[in-house]
Amino acid sequence: MKQDRARLTRERVVVGAAEVFYRLGFGGATLSDITEAAGVTKGALYFHFQSKEDVALAVIEAEHEIATAGAKRVLDSADGPLESMMRLCVDLAERLVTDPIVRAGIRLTTEASTFDRTVSLPYEDWLDTFESLTRAAVVAGELLPETDSDKLAHFIIPAFTGVQMVSDVFTGRDDLLQRVREMWEILLPAIVAKDSLSAIPTLLDRVFPTR
Amino acid sequence: MKQDRARLTRERVVVGAAEVFYRLGFGGATLSDITEAAGVTKGALYFHFQSKEDVALAVIEAEHEIATAGAKRVLDSADGPLESMMRLCVDLAERLVTDPIVRAGIRLTTEASTFDRTVSLPYEDWLDTFESLTRAAVVAGELLPETDSDKLAHFIIPAFTGVQMVSDVFTGRDDLLQRVREMWEILLPAIVAKDSLSAIPTLLDRVFPTR
Repeated sequence: MKQDRARLTRERVVVGAAEVFYRLGFGGATLSDITEAAGVTKGALYFHFQSKEDVALAVIEAEHEIATAGAKRVLDSADGPLESMMRLCVDLAERLVTDPIVRAGIRLTTEASTFDRTVSLPYEDWLDTFESLTRAAVVAGELLPETDSDKLAHFIIPAFTGVQMVSDVFTGRDDLLQRVREMWEILLPAIVAKDSLSAIPTLLDRVFPTR
Repeated sequence: MKQDRARLTRERVVVGAAEVFYRLGFGGATLSDITEAAGVTKGALYFHFQSKEDVALAVIEAEHEIATAGAKRVLDSADGPLESMMRLCVDLAERLVTDPIVRAGIRLTTEASTFDRTVSLPYEDWLDTFESLTRAAVVAGELLPETDSDKLAHFIIPAFTGVQMVSDVFTGRDDLLQRVREMWEILLPAIVAKDSLSAIPTLLDRVFPTR
């Protein structure tokens, strides 16, 4: 029971910290803000974490776990590697709009050099996943046979990163799903196999249903 | 002469602050770091600026002036709107590698919500420029006639933003020019007019010369 309570306290700190980091950024947040938002004492926080940096890394870790679990569900259910890539973008975009821990984790990752560590692991994981998927999509004949799959993966991930950032700056991510759809509208004609060109509109409407 | 000296002091603060903000981020930098890097007294800094936020905004402004002047030179000399867009990306990429004020300004813009102001002006200016250029490129027959020029502009700017960020995370921007070239390698086949498809390799080699 003591262990359960300790785990619960740790979770409360992470949830509270996510809210504070998302609102104030790493530089603007104080440990007092975090304990207040989490409803725990400073002692309780220090039982689990050594510093603000430690708490931030725990938020990034929690975000990464959530996003990875979401990605796994998408990969288990989507129809082929190309559609999987598109649905992974939708899944993360939706979490960026609705999930406080994901929003905070991505903000902290963006700001990461602020706390003097390069946070490249989340990017590496996404790149690995998309390199496998672009390769599989070429093998499956979904993409042009001459596609350089690693190069393509290494463009989609940064492009998505920028799209969500700029959507955040202009609309607080209100237009994010629309912008992600537009990204794929522009990309698909350049990359799909010639005999799939006519299927693009149907694919877009399936992955990005009008709400 | 007094005015010259004041202007010089202000410039020294901006240059020193750029170095500090680039290295430590907005949250990590202190006014003492900045006065030390600039070689000025706190009094001299406070003569020109009210707060760290004020100094940061001056760095962003200086960066924006440098980038805008660079963009003007590109627009005056490049060969057609499509090549202009590509050269604008190269120009900013090169500045991001070599110019301390541009590097700092872009880092601060990325972190901007940290100091509770949304810095959207730089994005807006780039978007406006690229909307004009994509439109002109359609009119000039360089891009497919069915191109949605505003949508395309609103993808290129975020995509570039993400490409430079991820390049920074992985390589400190060592591979930035290569990644920007790859971005255009992927985009061009999707957007250029059909009769220009065969000219893509020459265009890429002209804009991204092997060094």
